[in-house]
Amino acid sequence: MTLLTRLRQELGRDAVLTDADVTAAYSRDEMPLAPAGAPLAVVLPADVAGVQATVRACGEAGVPIVPRGAGSGLCGGANAIDGCVVLATTKLDQIEEIDAENRLAVVQPGVVNLTLRDAVAKHGLFYPPDPSSYDWCTLGGNLATNAGGLCCVKYGVTTDSVLGLEVVLADGSLLRTGRRTVKGVAGYDLTKLLVGSEGTLGVITQATLALRPLPQAPATFVAAFSSTRDAGSAVSRIVSEGLVPSLMEIMDATTVDAVERHLGTELGASSGSGALLLCQSDAGGEEARRELAALQQVCTDEGAGLTHATEDLAEGNLLMHARRSVHYALAAYGSNMTDDVCVPRTRIADLIEGCERISAEVGLRIAVCGHAGDGNMHPTVVYDADAEGEFDRARRAFDAILELGLALGGTVTGEHGVGKFKQEWLERELGPVGLRVHRQIKRALDPENLFNPGSMFSLE
Amino acid sequence: MTLLTRLRQELGRDAVLTDADVTAAYSRDEMPLAPAGAPLAVVLPADVAGVQATVRACGEAGVPIVPRGAGSGLCGGANAIDGCVVLATTKLDQIEEIDAENRLAVVQPGVVNLTLRDAVAKHGLFYPPDPSSYDWCTLGGNLATNAGGLCCVKYGVTTDSVLGLEVVLADGSLLRTGRRTVKGVAGYDLTKLLVGSEGTLGVITQATLALRPLPQAPATFVAAFSSTRDAGSAVSRIVSEGLVPSLMEIMDATTVDAVERHLGTELGASSGSGALLLCQSDAGGEEARRELAALQQVCTDEGAGLTHATEDLAEGNLLMHARRSVHYALAAYGSNMTDDVCVPRTRIADLIEGCERISAEVGLRIAVCGHAGDGNMHPTVVYDADAEGEFDRARRAFDAILELGLALGGTVTGEHGVGKFKQEWLERELGPVGLRVHRQIKRALDPENLFNPGSMFSLE
Repeated sequence: MTLLTRLRQELGRDAVLTDADVTAAYSRDEMPLAPAGAPLAVVLPADVAGVQATVRACGEAGVPIVPRGAGSGLCGGANAIDGCVVLATTKLDQIEEIDAENRLAVVQPGVVNLTLRDAVAKHGLFYPPDPSSYDWCTLGGNLATNAGGLCCVKYGVTTDSVLGLEVVLADGSLLRTGRRTVKGVAGYDLTKLLVGSEGTLGVITQATLALRPLPQAPATFVAAFSSTRDAGSAVSRIVSEGLVPSLMEIMDATTVDAVERHLGTELGASSGSGALLLCQSDAGGEEARRELAALQQVCTDEGAGLTHATEDLAEGNLLMHARRSVHYALAAYGSNMTDDVCVPRTRIADLIEGCERISAEVGLRIAVCGHAGDGNMHPTVVYDADAEGEFDRARRAFDAILELGLALGGTVTGEHGVGKFKQEWLERELGPVGLRVHRQIKRALDPENLFNPGSMFSLE
Repeated sequence: MTLLTRLRQELGRDAVLTDADVTAAYSRDEMPLAPAGAPLAVVLPADVAGVQATVRACGEAGVPIVPRGAGSGLCGGANAIDGCVVLATTKLDQIEEIDAENRLAVVQPGVVNLTLRDAVAKHGLFYPPDPSSYDWCTLGGNLATNAGGLCCVKYGVTTDSVLGLEVVLADGSLLRTGRRTVKGVAGYDLTKLLVGSEGTLGVITQATLALRPLPQAPATFVAAFSSTRDAGSAVSRIVSEGLVPSLMEIMDATTVDAVERHLGTELGASSGSGALLLCQSDAGGEEARRELAALQQVCTDEGAGLTHATEDLAEGNLLMHARRSVHYALAAYGSNMTDDVCVPRTRIADLIEGCERISAEVGLRIAVCGHAGDGNMHPTVVYDADAEGEFDRARRAFDAILELGLALGGTVTGEHGVGKFKQEWLERELGPVGLRVHRQIKRALDPENLFNPGSMFSLE
């Protein structure tokens, strides 16, 4: 029996897609630069048994599996390889339980991030991780990539909200990790090993997630600086003084300029401004006012030309909209290559200034914005895809930024992941011993290299 | 050349202890029930190269290594096995760096927890993990066991404060995991895999730890309930209403009674009281008053007979002293066997009532206190070590409590670890697939079973 026949028999005909036009739509995520192959089939199991059947069938046929959520990823981790089976978990989309008293939820991997947020909000609870694709990305993908977002400065990344997992391993067996209690040290922390393993060790079929009390409506604060250096100093001081806003984003002059053109509005930064800092507090009432006043004081001390605090939700949303529009604003200039370095928070100004140097060297616009609160910056190289040589120059700039990020004591990926795009950079960051340990763990759990082979790192 | 000669040559004579009277002092931690063997030698390397030399020499000689911090552990994880080398990291005791601007510290494993707390407090910073032995336990041991403490309800366990590690692996090579940035997803999370691995995968020689702003002086709140069930309901409601005190401890009637006798004081709970709830807020000022008022409201609603809130530090310390005296108070009754189950926070009352049943069955006193905020309870079975059969009955009660903890959806160890004492219980909690994955990872990283063999789980 062929693999396809077996899969159709065990999962049902509708769960196995082979039409090339259809499977092509499942062969890529949102990172256009990563390679993608043509899958043999896309399977959409409707239950855990279906995932196990797929894994066993593919294992026996020697056909690799690429696990996939909604495809919002930014590193090509979910990109197909030639002849593989893409295992999409989008039909496993049930919120199995919300236990408000213990502040946890049990979910299947295909639940959309926003769906869970909305469901738990009805219980006065909050699931913090908020990647920018939160209205369509799935929790399975969030778990596989250890997704971040704007919340991280105060609430951490996905792994910080995970209590336990259920994972289908390479032999089709079902591993349960972690627990329902908020504390526990029984055995190795397999949960956190699997979160962020980008589909290379197993297929997540269930997660137990920790929830928090729903925060208060946010109050918003913005500060405009005439120099990047001053904005960087303000971030350093905010961190070292122990202030913890619920959001702290930075936009450099190029970014602010692009957004102002795109929205046809003034962000309060006069032309020639160096950088804008956008913060929120979700502490509510007097506490929020105190937090914003402290931020305002630091920013003024560090030379901000303009500061503005507001508790008005509509005004806050307008400012947040400006931040969220960066991607679209820059798209108006040309094609975008968005980086994802994370540096110590004291080195943000160094990174932005370095990007200005690199921009001058390659002759391309580079706009820097990012999560100042945790040092995770997204410099975007803008290029004309049709102009001779521009892609190569953009790629050179992109790599130079990664190089700079490492030199500043940072990492090559703060939240997007490695996938099928940054393997060489991961090797560089890990070093030979780290790489060897990665290979040892991969071989131990997936000896036939069934799951997402070649993604993150190669076995040789 | 014998192993001892080689170790003396490479580490210096003073770093290798073989006198049986001396090595005996390094052969046990604080869990009296776990087995301990006689080590061949105790080595005290003064630097990372010394750790690497020890690992290489023992590896080549086929002599197992038991890594050890100060020996404050409560699961026998640091207990020697016959003929092993105990590798104590206590001389690696330097705080290598405090980076206040990026809120992190780089430490060697032999630094005492309190030493780091004091050092970072001078920078207005805070290292949360606070196991009860914080004034003498080392950070290396805290990392190996993923230690908890009273802080966990608000600040999590040790793993939540670790950014990166340096670890000597079984072949003597040096692995660096993690990063100095607060965010990053480059590769598998080896840091969190190694934290809590109880010295079975490598020897931690350095850690990069995340720090927090120093909290405000604590305000304290106490509530006395006439029934355990009411106290449990109060805990459930505190959690589900999203209140996050910086500490929330529960003491049952047996515990309160023992402490009152021991200290010769009234804790405000009249005789016949069911349970005492002790909470703190470190939010400071108005915010702390608001938090305590909310706690007070919940406790009153749930039937507390007495509630009392105080911002007076001395009074707060007295109440905390009562909680910290439990161990000594119970020792006055006889020998103690202290459990470490963790249950969902809604099941605390069920656990306490179950302990009352077990107490009646075995005819021994069982006192329950613990970290109500995270469900981590420490029921203590009191027995007369000299009385015929009492030890066996105590052990039966101890096991019945673990059984109950699992039945309530909990874990067999909330913070003490598995070590050389709870291996069978770990197997039961993990199940066959989980156990197999543990063995696969152990074999992948330590193929000759050099590190702490037989601790946590066996390889067959």
